Amino acid sequence: MKKEFNIGIVGAQFMGRVHTNAWFDVAQFYDLPFKVIMKAACDIDPASEQNFAVRLGWQSFETSWEKLIEREDIDIVDICTPNNSHMPIAVAAAKNGKHVICEKPIAMDTTEAKQMLEAAEVSGVNHMVAFNYRRIPAIALAKKMIDEGKLGKIHHFNAVYYQDWLVDPEFPWVWRHDIKLAGSGAHGDMNAHTVDLARFLVGDIESVCGEEKVFIKERKKPGTKKAGIVTADDAACFLARFENGALGNFIATRFATGKKNFLRLEIFGSKGSLIFNLERLNELEYYSRDDHSAEHGFRNILVTENEHPYINRWWPPGHTIGWEHTFIHEIGDFLTAIANNVKITPDFYDGYKCQLVLDAVMKSSKFRKWIDISN
Amino acid sequence: MKKEFNIGIVGAQFMGRVHTNAWFDVAQFYDLPFKVIMKAACDIDPASEQNFAVRLGWQSFETSWEKLIEREDIDIVDICTPNNSHMPIAVAAAKNGKHVICEKPIAMDTTEAKQMLEAAEVSGVNHMVAFNYRRIPAIALAKKMIDEGKLGKIHHFNAVYYQDWLVDPEFPWVWRHDIKLAGSGAHGDMNAHTVDLARFLVGDIESVCGEEKVFIKERKKPGTKKAGIVTADDAACFLARFENGALGNFIATRFATGKKNFLRLEIFGSKGSLIFNLERLNELEYYSRDDHSAEHGFRNILVTENEHPYINRWWPPGHTIGWEHTFIHEIGDFLTAIANNVKITPDFYDGYKCQLVLDAVMKSSKFRKWIDISN
Amino acid sequence: MKKEFNIGIVGAQFMGRVHTNAWFDVAQFYDLPFKVIMKAACDIDPASEQNFAVRLGWQSFETSWEKLIEREDIDIVDICTPNNSHMPIAVAAAKNGKHVICEKPIAMDTTEAKQMLEAAEVSGVNHMVAFNYRRIPAIALAKKMIDEGKLGKIHHFNAVYYQDWLVDPEFPWVWRHDIKLAGSGAHGDMNAHTVDLARFLVGDIESVCGEEKVFIKERKKPGTKKAGIVTADDAACFLARFENGALGNFIATRFATGKKNFLRLEIFGSKGSLIFNLERLNELEYYSRDDHSAEHGFRNILVTENEHPYINRWWPPGHTIGWEHTFIHEIGDFLTAIANNVKITPDFYDGYKCQLVLDAVMKSSKFRKWIDISN
Amino acid sequence: MKKEFNIGIVGAQFMGRVHTNAWFDVAQFYDLPFKVIMKAACDIDPASEQNFAVRLGWQSFETSWEKLIEREDIDIVDICTPNNSHMPIAVAAAKNGKHVICEKPIAMDTTEAKQMLEAAEVSGVNHMVAFNYRRIPAIALAKKMIDEGKLGKIHHFNAVYYQDWLVDPEFPWVWRHDIKLAGSGAHGDMNAHTVDLARFLVGDIESVCGEEKVFIKERKKPGTKKAGIVTADDAACFLARFENGALGNFIATRFATGKKNFLRLEIFGSKGSLIFNLERLNELEYYSRDDHSAEHGFRNILVTENEHPYINRWWPPGHTIGWEHTFIHEIGDFLTAIANNVKITPDFYDGYKCQLVLDAVMKSSKFRKWIDISN
Repeated sequence: MKKEFNIGIVGAQFMGRVHTNAWFDVAQFYDLPFKVIMKAACDIDPASEQNFAVRLGWQSFETSWEKLIEREDIDIVDICTPNNSHMPIAVAAAKNGKHVICEKPIAMDTTEAKQMLEAAEVSGVNHMVAFNYRRIPAIALAKKMIDEGKLGKIHHFNAVYYQDWLVDPEFPWVWRHDIKLAGSGAHGDMNAHTVDLARFLVGDIESVCGEEKVFIKERKKPGTKKAGIVTADDAACFLARFENGALGNFIATRFATGKKNFLRLEIFGSKGSLIFNLERLNELEYYSRDDHSAEHGFRNILVTENEHPYINRWWPPGHTIGWEHTFIHEIGDFLTAIANNVKITPDFYDGYKCQLVLDAVMKSSKFRKWIDISN
Repeated sequence: MKKEFNIGIVGAQFMGRVHTNAWFDVAQFYDLPFKVIMKAACDIDPASEQNFAVRLGWQSFETSWEKLIEREDIDIVDICTPNNSHMPIAVAAAKNGKHVICEKPIAMDTTEAKQMLEAAEVSGVNHMVAFNYRRIPAIALAKKMIDEGKLGKIHHFNAVYYQDWLVDPEFPWVWRHDIKLAGSGAHGDMNAHTVDLARFLVGDIESVCGEEKVFIKERKKPGTKKAGIVTADDAACFLARFENGALGNFIATRFATGKKNFLRLEIFGSKGSLIFNLERLNELEYYSRDDHSAEHGFRNILVTENEHPYINRWWPPGHTIGWEHTFIHEIGDFLTAIANNVKITPDFYDGYKCQLVLDAVMKSSKFRKWIDISN
Repeated sequence: MKKEFNIGIVGAQFMGRVHTNAWFDVAQFYDLPFKVIMKAACDIDPASEQNFAVRLGWQSFETSWEKLIEREDIDIVDICTPNNSHMPIAVAAAKNGKHVICEKPIAMDTTEAKQMLEAAEVSGVNHMVAFNYRRIPAIALAKKMIDEGKLGKIHHFNAVYYQDWLVDPEFPWVWRHDIKLAGSGAHGDMNAHTVDLARFLVGDIESVCGEEKVFIKERKKPGTKKAGIVTADDAACFLARFENGALGNFIATRFATGKKNFLRLEIFGSKGSLIFNLERLNELEYYSRDDHSAEHGFRNILVTENEHPYINRWWPPGHTIGWEHTFIHEIGDFLTAIANNVKITPDFYDGYKCQLVLDAVMKSSKFRKWIDISN
Repeated sequence: MKKEFNIGIVGAQFMGRVHTNAWFDVAQFYDLPFKVIMKAACDIDPASEQNFAVRLGWQSFETSWEKLIEREDIDIVDICTPNNSHMPIAVAAAKNGKHVICEKPIAMDTTEAKQMLEAAEVSGVNHMVAFNYRRIPAIALAKKMIDEGKLGKIHHFNAVYYQDWLVDPEFPWVWRHDIKLAGSGAHGDMNAHTVDLARFLVGDIESVCGEEKVFIKERKKPGTKKAGIVTADDAACFLARFENGALGNFIATRFATGKKNFLRLEIFGSKGSLIFNLERLNELEYYSRDDHSAEHGFRNILVTENEHPYINRWWPPGHTIGWEHTFIHEIGDFLTAIANNVKITPDFYDGYKCQLVLDAVMKSSKFRKWIDISN
């Protein structure tokens, strides 16, 4: 095993900053057999050299991702760029033998996702999709409880993901409103998360029926007189049948006035239920039919105990963690997998499977009928 | 105006008892220009004479609804029987010139609903469907706020109605599990309420796409060795497009382990939002984009102030009311409308419109595609 | 046993109306071996004859309580008058052989309370103080759980009772602001409830240390130019030591801006905890140290199950009841006790014991030190 | 201004680790005009060299704090040791011209606190007490709103701090149970925080009346047969009068079964109210009497907006932060104050003022009466 692993990050916007924080902190919370070196950052905007790379501690800077992935001193590539560049970067990085972690959704569509998966598998690198919500302690606990049979057979998986930043009609047109650049809107951004959590917690989806909606069809385009046409969905919801018979319901919207980053899961099983809400991510509600009958009720587990997943790395009971810590878990687990030379999930296969569902929903919305999911 | 109005009730089960409570109490909380006389109760089970009619103060008893509606001393007929008898009773009562209030869902299907509406309109009697949730003070306040424009244009109406009494596999087969007797399961029982609230608060629905599900296909039939086949849905959910462009999402299930009578509405508009939960029916959550920006938040209105709808009939601020009080509002308003010789809503037209949506969802589930609603 | 029991009520304000509702409804929910007759109402204001007695169904009316209690056709006297007349009415009623139920606080001070207790005991009538909160189903369930040992040894009983109707400086001076007429302010009105609940759930209090506060010392007196002096406390809080070693903390205030009728109990024991909030009176939070360790949490019991106290008289699971129903339980249990010729609690002894604590707090506030409670 | 500031930390337990995290991360979130160097760590346990200093990135290690503060290459001393060593370390550090940040409570008693304050003032160094909760964004927002007059005149400040780690009778005796080593128990540990918040948000306290309690008087002492005697309080609560007329109520306990780190503030003013709960530290409840009257309610502000205090350093709306981030704010602000050569609060004066209140409560508990606070 090498003594140092060098990281190269592509993309210096919001997610780039969040991932940087995780690379910077990870060794404080994970005992790793090698050093993690923040070797190189890459962004097409040269200004990012100062205000991102130098500012946050990356040792060097590139403006071309091609250059970055060709550098021999880079071991791991972290892709935080817009969705339409995930595929080429990931494929090239894998071909060059770099381990790859890629932001979600994995790609623009299933075809791209499949290319990424194949490239990674052929080259034998470690690959991961940054579905960080799997590594919220409350979600990891939910997974453990479901695997232990605490919920029994699952009947319902109801997920909403509510944000409201587009409800303001003055919010300008940006590239995210163009389906050709973004792939989709709320759907790919938000349903990607809940579909991945559905697969993680319940299993694969068999068929879907969905509806996508643009509420505000034109927005002001800064610097021009012409309005920008909005083609990416403001909201997308769909019904789903799981392979195991469960019924799914998914809503993603950027028009949920007052909700900022509200992802709620309600999972109802034959023996118990779980409810989770991202805005209170240290908590997990659990109902057990096994409780004494006069004292049944949803109990609010504060997921900050030493015996809860990931918490032994943090603070004593009741001392809550924040949203960003999920990235430390993700990157810590990714590095640990590399160190141990084992696979990790969610990987590009999970990204691909999620994309299959997302694509089927879009097709369903177009044809106004249920669509079966097939590999 | 007559000095006394005589009530005849049909059905002595749960809803019969709840309506009885409202007829008994209504004059304590409504100033009416006539006396309300609990004249006659009717049930096919002769035992109901003692344990229902005499016990609760009905002056006489019949075992045949035909007899009851023919009695000249009955002014108002209250129908609390299973769904498959609503239509014949209501039509006959209306033809006999009785005012009619009928439990929901109005009928077994749209055809029956239409017959009821026509019979009532032709005879000129007052008619009402017991969608009592419209008269929860918090819902009435929501309606007022929406009418005043506090929410602006509505984008989302997301409704769930969660119960869990069928999740127990030992729960026996009853007539409600037979689609021929019940019309439907969770769908007609629970979505009927949320569809009516959707129409009340948002407007009419244009098209739907739904899924109905039976999770436990056979249940023990008491007194027999043969299992009873479950044909009525355990759960039903659907997507909806409203005529005004809003997007709807409805879930009804009797398999939501831990939720007893949990009806939640989330209504997101361009200017504000409202959230309601039946298990905390004295509360209404409201978010306004007009609040000072650093102090935005969902505010929890305790709907117990004198200026809130219906509350001036009850207690001082903070003294909560219960579920049953909605029936006093319903019957009080119904009697007031009769006293003033004006129409009241929700009437049989609303019951019919609701049924159109319910029927379309069932059709959609069968054909696996969106169905347009047409009158 | 007589076939009919005749009720006479004294006081036609808020509490008179609430009790009337309970007398009117009780036989709908309790099977009693006699009829309950709303025989006579009494109020010093003659206008109450029409707008109270006739309006709500009392058969006759008096303006003098002395007359009412002398009437031979009255079996039970219900005292809903201001605090300073509780004692004379109750003592006279008891001497005349009437059963007595009296609003809380039982009296102006301990001396009065003792006189009432003695008069009632000597005459052998049934007597009750209307601490209705003992008969909230959630509180009755809490009592049951504590008696079963679910909390173990109790360490803390923390009670707040928050209202805000006096925070408005324009709220005028009323007799309640005069300590000579009211006995005390928030203290006697609100701490009376929480002290009674403390005794009910934890046990007797040994010593107290308190503070009473008038925030607004003068208020406009309608019809005069002179300001009214406020002598009754706006807020009163105190620490308490229970005889069994538990520590108590009580806050009562009418200046808790935004809280309308918010009574919260937090009870922490060696094995578990309970939390209750009057504004959500159908719920009870319970934490058990016996739960599986990774799944510990406060569980929210929706106290609407058939097996919960009082609920079998009402509706199915999830169908909540309101504040006023506690009075039906109170009066139903009182009548049942009379029917069975057994004692009932809380009786005048409980009222007296509560008053001992209230008086000690006032003394403590005056002398700025702890005061022991002695009989 | 120097180009680098060297930090020396004393104490390698829980708080040492938390502060280390903040020193490590601070430059990622604060633009500072100098580099922050984690120069030296100190702990009496030599094992801390490997598992703390080397593990977390401190460049050198000492086992004697005297040596550390004598080192010329140390600019700032961070004191994370048990309470009984705060004073000597802080005084010596200040005399050696080091800036000092010290964990709370500042000292064992007022006398020590005064010595620290004087030493720091004489030497002219920057000094801070680590009352980190002032720098929770929601608390900083509360302070801003109060300063803007949003609450008007404050009537009530009710604070509870609930933990439960001592309710288990098997929890062994540790030095924290000895009043001579710890100064006090729950009182100094937890009430120190709420008293500081009270001073920050409401103002100084004039007099107090309190009660301290040991529920379990002996605990097993590991390695011995003799039981350890518990002299430090398990719980401490007190009433307070503020100089500005507000009424205070404080409860701190380690016996609040089920509550892990639950610090709740309820602040009621003449114009509005605020409620805060540490277990949901990204939220602040606000009630304004200025809201439209039919829509009054406590609104839940999710304090994650760019315009909220500190949030512009973190993530987009709805992306919550955790407990530890408050230390980054604290240390970032401390360093910024040093960079700008300005004073910062809470400093040793605030620590001293807090200690005055804590000491008075202990005296009050002993003498069973109110104690005035005097400097």
